[in-house]
Amino acid sequence: MAFPPSVRLVEVGPRDGLQNEPEAIATETKLELIDRLGAAGLAHIEAASFVSPKWVPQMADHHEVMTGLRRREGIVYSALTPNLKGLEAALECGVEEVAVFGAASETFSRKNINCSVAESLERFAPVLERAREANVRVRGYVSCVLGCPYEGEIASAKVAEVAKALHDMGCYEISLGDTIGTGTPLKAKRMLEAVARDVPLTRLAAHFHDTYGQALANLYAVLEEGVAVIDSSVAGLGGCPYAKGASGNVASEDVVYLLNGLGIQSGIDLDQLAATGHWITQAIGRPNRSKVGVALAAK
Amino acid sequence: MAFPPSVRLVEVGPRDGLQNEPEAIATETKLELIDRLGAAGLAHIEAASFVSPKWVPQMADHHEVMTGLRRREGIVYSALTPNLKGLEAALECGVEEVAVFGAASETFSRKNINCSVAESLERFAPVLERAREANVRVRGYVSCVLGCPYEGEIASAKVAEVAKALHDMGCYEISLGDTIGTGTPLKAKRMLEAVARDVPLTRLAAHFHDTYGQALANLYAVLEEGVAVIDSSVAGLGGCPYAKGASGNVASEDVVYLLNGLGIQSGIDLDQLAATGHWITQAIGRPNRSKVGVALAAK
Repeated sequence: MAFPPSVRLVEVGPRDGLQNEPEAIATETKLELIDRLGAAGLAHIEAASFVSPKWVPQMADHHEVMTGLRRREGIVYSALTPNLKGLEAALECGVEEVAVFGAASETFSRKNINCSVAESLERFAPVLERAREANVRVRGYVSCVLGCPYEGEIASAKVAEVAKALHDMGCYEISLGDTIGTGTPLKAKRMLEAVARDVPLTRLAAHFHDTYGQALANLYAVLEEGVAVIDSSVAGLGGCPYAKGASGNVASEDVVYLLNGLGIQSGIDLDQLAATGHWITQAIGRPNRSKVGVALAAK
Repeated sequence: MAFPPSVRLVEVGPRDGLQNEPEAIATETKLELIDRLGAAGLAHIEAASFVSPKWVPQMADHHEVMTGLRRREGIVYSALTPNLKGLEAALECGVEEVAVFGAASETFSRKNINCSVAESLERFAPVLERAREANVRVRGYVSCVLGCPYEGEIASAKVAEVAKALHDMGCYEISLGDTIGTGTPLKAKRMLEAVARDVPLTRLAAHFHDTYGQALANLYAVLEEGVAVIDSSVAGLGGCPYAKGASGNVASEDVVYLLNGLGIQSGIDLDQLAATGHWITQAIGRPNRSKVGVALAAK
């Protein structure tokens, strides 16, 4: 048991948080959100997704977002690129980091990206190759690492297998997603231990959802194991598409509050982050799902 | 690090959860809530508070609640009794367990019960004595164990001192309250360790609020230390009077989900508990603050 001295937060609010919003959100609003997040100290912001607007209409302005954002020094602005076409479009915008999205569940993979897990990995190969040529880093997501909406339990061995494949393929970091938030701390810890036998711990990130309120407990458990990269979303933006009205991403504010309490550095100004969460939820008419955000605003 | 094999939940929803509700809640509704909680497997329910209706009008029907409830075998129905007058009234209702409420913060004690911590302990002495005569168990609460709304940080030594005084006085169990929910896991763990040097761990309960979203992480941390009694409130009933609109008690459903995931027995039927949370929040027109409750209802 050794907490990391510092943790890097990967802010996924502008992408994972907003992608399922039913009403179009103005590009200007997204740009302001990204800018405010950078000002609050977030050094890694997932800003857009280069998927077909047919599938994710909310991300149709990916080009405008990636070319319109005011780049701050030292901040990585990344984008999701599910295939070569998406990557090429992202490269045209001068992106410096992209992400591919795999699953540890066969059924989820088939229902979500319409192919088997093995086929999805094959599809990523040319993306990784082209990214390497272009000197662009690739992050790999693995979804359903602590449960699947269709299959229920997912074997840690399967998670490790997919994570290792993405790492071997050249992903510099593997983000382990509890997509439906059903995980609990010991399960999270054991899954992580299984994956860390195949991929160095320093290459692993925790991407936990708070659907069942367990995200911070799960994060605490994997922090005890030394995980030093955490994905989160300001104001907990993004619901759970598998349980309408329920929470999705863990709130960045709540994670930073936890880290501050543990004496772990993140470089983030909590008050400024909470103000950003308050602002964006007002701007898009959504409830603030950060308890820290609500408590600070109510004080 | 050794998790307890089983945990006893003390359900505080009917008392701590409802006491600050601005609108009067019908005694019938309270009785039905208590009955449903018992049916779901809660074996310890804090049902009422024998305080002056001048101070807590919502608890004015304490006599009706304590005499009207349908007693199920094996369930403890307890009541808060801040003084001898309250205890006598509770004894008239045939109560088998009562609780007294102290603080680890001088300022909180003065503002909340209008006397110093030492004076409050003096006031409890005759309550403990009379309860012993009547063969009624007394539980002791210590509030502000991880922070005070007026003083901020609270020294663990002070928490230990008050907990020890209550234990020495005859309280069979000491419930350590993070009244404003500002605690984080390491702080909770260290506070617990400090108290456990003076009071046996088996006599300690964790009463954590979720105002900053940290309650489950904090509970996980003290479960690792072996704490085996947890206070919680169905549907997270009860807000935080120090930050209007913010969360108060940790939700019982979320705690049971955590325990289930850790393989810790609680004897509680989660679905029935979640249905009870759904019912009471509908009945009193409050948001369901249990993420598990919301997720299960949305599925």
